[in-house]
Amino acid sequence: MTNDTEDVRMRGFSRRTLVSVACRWIDEHCAPQLHEAIPLVSAPGRVLAEDVVSDLDVPPFARSAMDGYAVIAAETNGATSYNPIVFNLVGTSLPGEPFDGEISAGDAVRIMTGAPIPTGADAVVPAEFASEGQNRVELSQPIAPGKNVGRVGEDIESGTVILSAGRRLRPQDIGLMASVGQSTVRVVRAPRVRVVITGSELIEPGEERNEHQIFDANSFILQGLLERDGGSLESLVRTLDSRETIEKAMTGTGADVVLVSGGSSVGAEDFAPRILAEHGELAIHGIAVRPASPTGMGILGGRLVFLLPGNPVSCLCAYDMFAGRAIRQMAGRSAEWTYPKRRLTTASKIVSAIGRVDYCRVRLLENQVEPIAVSGASILSSTTRADGFVVIPESCEGYAPGTEIDVYLYDFSE
Amino acid sequence: MTNDTEDVRMRGFSRRTLVSVACRWIDEHCAPQLHEAIPLVSAPGRVLAEDVVSDLDVPPFARSAMDGYAVIAAETNGATSYNPIVFNLVGTSLPGEPFDGEISAGDAVRIMTGAPIPTGADAVVPAEFASEGQNRVELSQPIAPGKNVGRVGEDIESGTVILSAGRRLRPQDIGLMASVGQSTVRVVRAPRVRVVITGSELIEPGEERNEHQIFDANSFILQGLLERDGGSLESLVRTLDSRETIEKAMTGTGADVVLVSGGSSVGAEDFAPRILAEHGELAIHGIAVRPASPTGMGILGGRLVFLLPGNPVSCLCAYDMFAGRAIRQMAGRSAEWTYPKRRLTTASKIVSAIGRVDYCRVRLLENQVEPIAVSGASILSSTTRADGFVVIPESCEGYAPGTEIDVYLYDFSE
Repeated sequence: MTNDTEDVRMRGFSRRTLVSVACRWIDEHCAPQLHEAIPLVSAPGRVLAEDVVSDLDVPPFARSAMDGYAVIAAETNGATSYNPIVFNLVGTSLPGEPFDGEISAGDAVRIMTGAPIPTGADAVVPAEFASEGQNRVELSQPIAPGKNVGRVGEDIESGTVILSAGRRLRPQDIGLMASVGQSTVRVVRAPRVRVVITGSELIEPGEERNEHQIFDANSFILQGLLERDGGSLESLVRTLDSRETIEKAMTGTGADVVLVSGGSSVGAEDFAPRILAEHGELAIHGIAVRPASPTGMGILGGRLVFLLPGNPVSCLCAYDMFAGRAIRQMAGRSAEWTYPKRRLTTASKIVSAIGRVDYCRVRLLENQVEPIAVSGASILSSTTRADGFVVIPESCEGYAPGTEIDVYLYDFSE
Repeated sequence: MTNDTEDVRMRGFSRRTLVSVACRWIDEHCAPQLHEAIPLVSAPGRVLAEDVVSDLDVPPFARSAMDGYAVIAAETNGATSYNPIVFNLVGTSLPGEPFDGEISAGDAVRIMTGAPIPTGADAVVPAEFASEGQNRVELSQPIAPGKNVGRVGEDIESGTVILSAGRRLRPQDIGLMASVGQSTVRVVRAPRVRVVITGSELIEPGEERNEHQIFDANSFILQGLLERDGGSLESLVRTLDSRETIEKAMTGTGADVVLVSGGSSVGAEDFAPRILAEHGELAIHGIAVRPASPTGMGILGGRLVFLLPGNPVSCLCAYDMFAGRAIRQMAGRSAEWTYPKRRLTTASKIVSAIGRVDYCRVRLLENQVEPIAVSGASILSSTTRADGFVVIPESCEGYAPGTEIDVYLYDFSE
C-alpha cells in the first residue's frame, strides 16, 4: 500500500496510486477521536459518543393532556348536552401548581394541559364539553377512564436507552435529552485541523498587493469545507516557500489533522512531501485523479497529514476526495459526501481517460448536465459557475450525450 | 385574512385557519432583512446581499501552469527525445520571486507552477520533457505558443459579476471572493430570534426537580431549529405562567421574531394570544393542522410573533410549518424545508381527517414507511424514533397501504 518515497522533485511521478487505494488507506488510518462533554445547546449536528439512558420517567407524574375538568370517569356516565351532569368545582390544578386535595364522587377540578391529575381523578373532560358556574361545572359528555390523561412514563420510561451512540444529533434529540434532565452530552470530539498555506506569492485578502502577488483563496475554501465536515480549525499558518517554516508548521503539535496547501508536487520548491517522508511516513504521493494528481498523504507524529495541490480547483478536489473523508470519519460521521446526489442525463459529451478518475464540474440544464467548458485546475470560477460535479471512474473514457449518470450537487440541501 | 381576536379562553376555537392561508400570511409579512458586512471566514452558508464585482484580473499576471522551463515556443520546433534541443538556462522564476530579466532566442528560465512568465517567453515546457545540466537544459518536446501559460484574467476578468445577490455562499464562493482581494462580504443579516418559554412547571435541565416539575425541552428544540434555518438567538426567556412577565418578554425590543412556547391555546392561563391582540395584531389563531392546532401568529411592534403550543411535538410541528418558514425567508433563504424528500410507499395505513393537515411521524422500513404508533402531541420520543414525517393535506383522509407518497426525512443530508 505504501508508495516509494524517493525524491520526485523535477522528475514527475513514476506511478500514481488509485483513488480507491488512497480511500482505503484513509479508512484504515482514521483513528477514532476522543470524546468530550459539551452543553446541550452546542450539540445539534454533533455525534453521540455513547448511549443515553434516562434515569427519569417522562412525564414523571400523571398529567392532563387537555384543558378541562379532572373527574372520576364513572361519574360522567349518561351526561349529554340535553342532560348535563353537575359537578362540584372543588379547585384548580395548574402546571407546577397542583390541586392539593383529593377528589370524591361528584367533584371536578379545573385543570390545564400539563397539570398534575388530582389524586382520585382518572380522566379529564375537555373544556368544550363543560359549562362553568359558581363553584360548579356542568359536563355534557361522558368520558372513559384514562381519557386525556398522560400516564407516568408514557413518553420515556426510566432506564431505557433514548438515543444510541453514533447518532448525529437533531434538534428534537437535544430536546429529548433535556426532557430527562440532562444538561450536557458526551459527543465525539471534533478533529482539530491545522491548515498550512504555502506560497511566497500569496497574501491575505485585504492586504496591499504588489504586481506579482496573488490573494490566498485556499485557506477560505479549506476552512469552509473542514467545518462543514465536523472539523474544527486548530490554526491557520500562511508561510513562504521556506523549508524551515513549512517544517515547523507540519511538525508542531496540537492538531489531529494537518492540511498543507501547495508545494505538494514534484517542483524544486515542493518541500512538503520530503518533510513528511523524513519526519513521518509519506504513504501515498501522486494519485490517479484529475485535477488533484499531485496529492500526498501520510502520518507524522500520530497526525494525519494531507498534501493538497496549491491550484484552487485541485485543492478543493483533493480535499473532497481524501482529506474530507478522513475528517468526517474522525468526527464520527459517515465517510460519504454530504452533497445531494441526483440521477441526470448528459446533454453533451463528457471526456475522461482510462486509468484515472476525473472530477468534472458540470452545469445543470433542466434535467440534464453539461461539463463546464473552462476547467483548468487554476480556474476557481469553474467551481462557482458549476452546479455540481461528476466523478468518472478509472475504467471509463467518458460519457456520450444522453447517458444517465450520478451528479453530486454543490447545493446546500434545501 | 385576519381572524376574529375574541377571547377564546376555555371556549375552544370557533374556526381554524387553513395551513395554506397561514403560509400565505407568513410569506406576505416576511419583511426583507437588513444587510451586514461580515468577515469572509464567517460567511459559508450565509446569503449574499448584493452582487460581487471583481476589480482585479485573476490571475493579475501571466503565470506558469506547470513546473518546467519557460521558453520562446518557436525555438522548440523539432525537439524530440532522440534530438533534444539545448537551451541556455538563464535563471529561475518562482511564485512571488519573478525572473527579472528578459528571454531571448535559445534562452530558458526554470519556472514553478504559479510563477510569473518571464518577459519574452510564451510557453512552458513541462519538467518531464527536460533534462537540466550546468547552466543549460535539454528539451525533448516541441511546444505551442501559449501552452502551459495562464493568461491574465483567464479565471476572472476585472469588472465582471463573480457572484450574484441571493446566492447561499459555498466554500468555493468564499475562496473566489478572497481571490479578488475581498476580506469582508455583505450578507443578509440573520434574523434575531427571541425564544420565550412559558410554563410554571418548567425547570432547566441540570436544576433540582421537585415532584410536579418537568424539564424544559422546547427551548433546546427551538434553538436548534432556528439556528439551522439561519436565525440567531437574540435571547432565551423562561418564565412562569404570569401575564406580566410574558407581556414583558413579548413586548421588549431587540428581536426581529418572537417565538412563544406554551400558553398559546384557549386555557385560562393562555395569556399570549390576548397580549398579542392587545399590543399588536393577532392575525391568525387556531390552525387546521394536527398536532399544532393551537398555533397563533401576528405582529407586535414590527416584530413577527409566533405562538407555539407547549406540547413538544406540537411545538416542533408549529415551528416547522410556520415559524421556520418565516425565519428562513428573513435569512434570505428559500421558504421550503431543508429536509431531504423521498418518494416512498406506505407499508401500512396512515389515517388522517378531511379538513385538516396532518403531520405524521413515520419510520422507514427499507423503501417503505409506516406511521409511528404512539403519536400524541406530548410524546417527544415519537419524533426521535421517527425517521421523518409525512404531510397529509386537508383534502385527504389518509393513505391505504401501498400508496406512493412524499416523505420528509429528519436526516442530515449525508
